[in-house]
Amino acid sequence: TKTYKIAVIPGDGIGKEVVPEGIRVLEAVGAKFDIAFQWDEKDWSCERWQATGRMMPEDALEGIRGHDGIFLGAVGWPTVPDHVSLWGLLIPIRREFRQYVNLRPVRLFEGVRSPLADRAPGDIDFMIVRENNEGEYSEMGGRLNKGTPDEVVIQENIFTRKGVDRVLRYAFDLAQSRPKKHLTSATKSNGIIHTMPFWDECFAAMAKDYPDIRTDQFHIDILTAHFVQHPDWFDVVVGSNLFGDILSDLGPAVTGTIGIAPSANLNPEREFPSMFEPVHGSAPDIAGQGIANPIGQIWSGAMMLDHLGHPEAARAIVAAIERLLAEKGPRTRDMGGTADTVAVGKALADLI
Amino acid sequence: TKTYKIAVIPGDGIGKEVVPEGIRVLEAVGAKFDIAFQWDEKDWSCERWQATGRMMPEDALEGIRGHDGIFLGAVGWPTVPDHVSLWGLLIPIRREFRQYVNLRPVRLFEGVRSPLADRAPGDIDFMIVRENNEGEYSEMGGRLNKGTPDEVVIQENIFTRKGVDRVLRYAFDLAQSRPKKHLTSATKSNGIIHTMPFWDECFAAMAKDYPDIRTDQFHIDILTAHFVQHPDWFDVVVGSNLFGDILSDLGPAVTGTIGIAPSANLNPEREFPSMFEPVHGSAPDIAGQGIANPIGQIWSGAMMLDHLGHPEAARAIVAAIERLLAEKGPRTRDMGGTADTVAVGKALADLI
Ligand SMILES: CC(C)[C@H](C(=O)O)[C@@H](O)C(=O)O
Ligand SMILES: CC(C)[C@H](C(=O)O)[C@@H](O)C(=O)O
Repeated sequence: TKTYKIAVIPGDGIGKEVVPEGIRVLEAVGAKFDIAFQWDEKDWSCERWQATGRMMPEDALEGIRGHDGIFLGAVGWPTVPDHVSLWGLLIPIRREFRQYVNLRPVRLFEGVRSPLADRAPGDIDFMIVRENNEGEYSEMGGRLNKGTPDEVVIQENIFTRKGVDRVLRYAFDLAQSRPKKHLTSATKSNGIIHTMPFWDECFAAMAKDYPDIRTDQFHIDILTAHFVQHPDWFDVVVGSNLFGDILSDLGPAVTGTIGIAPSANLNPEREFPSMFEPVHGSAPDIAGQGIANPIGQIWSGAMMLDHLGHPEAARAIVAAIERLLAEKGPRTRDMGGTADTVAVGKALADLI
Repeated sequence: TKTYKIAVIPGDGIGKEVVPEGIRVLEAVGAKFDIAFQWDEKDWSCERWQATGRMMPEDALEGIRGHDGIFLGAVGWPTVPDHVSLWGLLIPIRREFRQYVNLRPVRLFEGVRSPLADRAPGDIDFMIVRENNEGEYSEMGGRLNKGTPDEVVIQENIFTRKGVDRVLRYAFDLAQSRPKKHLTSATKSNGIIHTMPFWDECFAAMAKDYPDIRTDQFHIDILTAHFVQHPDWFDVVVGSNLFGDILSDLGPAVTGTIGIAPSANLNPEREFPSMFEPVHGSAPDIAGQGIANPIGQIWSGAMMLDHLGHPEAARAIVAAIERLLAEKGPRTRDMGGTADTVAVGKALADLI
């Protein structure tokens, strides 16, 4: 039996409710596929910030640097400014551990109500590859004449050749591993005149290395329109930190799966642990009621298994999710059911 | 009879095909409402750039500074880099003439096929107010070690108190003039740590001046999801230059009207001419065939009339569009019909 040491960060709100279900299902699939986990639970959260003034201890990342993975619930709470909680926990982990790929699947499942008319399961099945370490999210910039009528605020977007190339490389390789071999780049080089034409140049240059991949690119504005009108066009979509962020909420919305969408923050070189978290947040409006949908967390667990080298175990989880949804198994309120969080977690564990 | 002097810039591609239809309908409504136009046509375009190296003459804006309005088709052509054509024509006009509000309606019309299931005309009817002069679109920034593996590229987003407050003021006033009195702000203050928290502060401060307006705000990622899942939630939505750009393509996509969406680039103080243009671009794939949908251009003409102080004439155009769509009048291919551009323009002129 191989044993993996996983840092578990339930975080805030419903994160604390869905993470145990993720663990339940991972334990179930582990028992079947002979995989063991050592869960190293951390209380890093807004609660901790309120008690100590820090989202996580100063040496937090040192302590998990050698772990095999990080299993995160959600971060953020109304009483803490969002930029404080996120830049105090989520974003430092993504950066310190060079998780420069944020991978997010978009799929229309059987048994899930999509807001779109006339789309059938199978029509929509693509991957979003989001740059996760630089770009529009940066500490650089600041505020001049703060609080006065003359205030000027600057935010610097920083793109590097190394940073862009490595995420594009990942996206091209991923596209190459898929039957359709089609890669779409999100840009805005007509409006944003320094970074986006640069992004396009990097994309065009790398495309030459992959003559078998069909490439195209769209400005982010019309690309969001295509996600709604032609979601069947896409196979792999690559975008900057901000554009990828937007597209990876929009994609799941289009497929009616925002509550179940997973994500993987990957360090493809495996020098550092990667992090797995649902796309949804801490959902203060329903936190504490035990009604949150655990599927995003559970599916994130499948992505973790995949990354750890257990694709069959990962597929077993996804297959259980497919069956639960298609066969009208228990589902939470956001998906039109009445089941609670634990019931859905147990049902999925049972299906495995 | 009041006569308005209007600069006409057909621009590129289908811009040259739809602008004449816009003029046809404006002439028809002018005849009825006793409004006359003096059309001052300009050849500013990518063609001009290829011939002269400039999208427009050096003194171009001087020559139209005193005009009553600008009626623009579309700018951009595949043989000219987008950032060259747009920053050589469209964006300088928006800025030089302080058109700091970009106003774009989102409406689900009777007779239009929306990609959404279960939405009826009347369910979706809101306005997007986009900041149009600063923010993410800026000349500031540049490229270090250009073309080398060590390249670093910076794009500076610049927000000013004056720039943010004036567009928010417009949005609050607009919300106040509407029955629902509801204003939504697009933000991303959890990821973008200098400019977006500042934007939120300006929004919160101004909300105090409008106690009768219901306000809310969403991060741009989940806001795009809400556009798809809950488009009925919105009344007026205000966003930065980039966020407004994205939302104002997504909104029309959700209502199936991307080919007919109009926009107004407004200088609310009327110190300078405002500019009216469809949301769609020059569409090189169908240009020259006479099959482009002219409704976006024609509706933009209605927004121009509104701005010039002729709300009834404006309403007559919108009413004609409503009738044409609801009564299955001639429509272009993008809307499932077989009519050409001129036929739709003539049908609308006849309806007036
Ligand atoms: C062409 C482009 C620069 C422009 C913009 O982003 O402003 C367009 O998308 C628009 O929305 O008017
Ligand atoms: C919470 C926020 C900072 C984060 C992001 O924008 O990266 C979230 O939206 C996500 O997509 O993981």
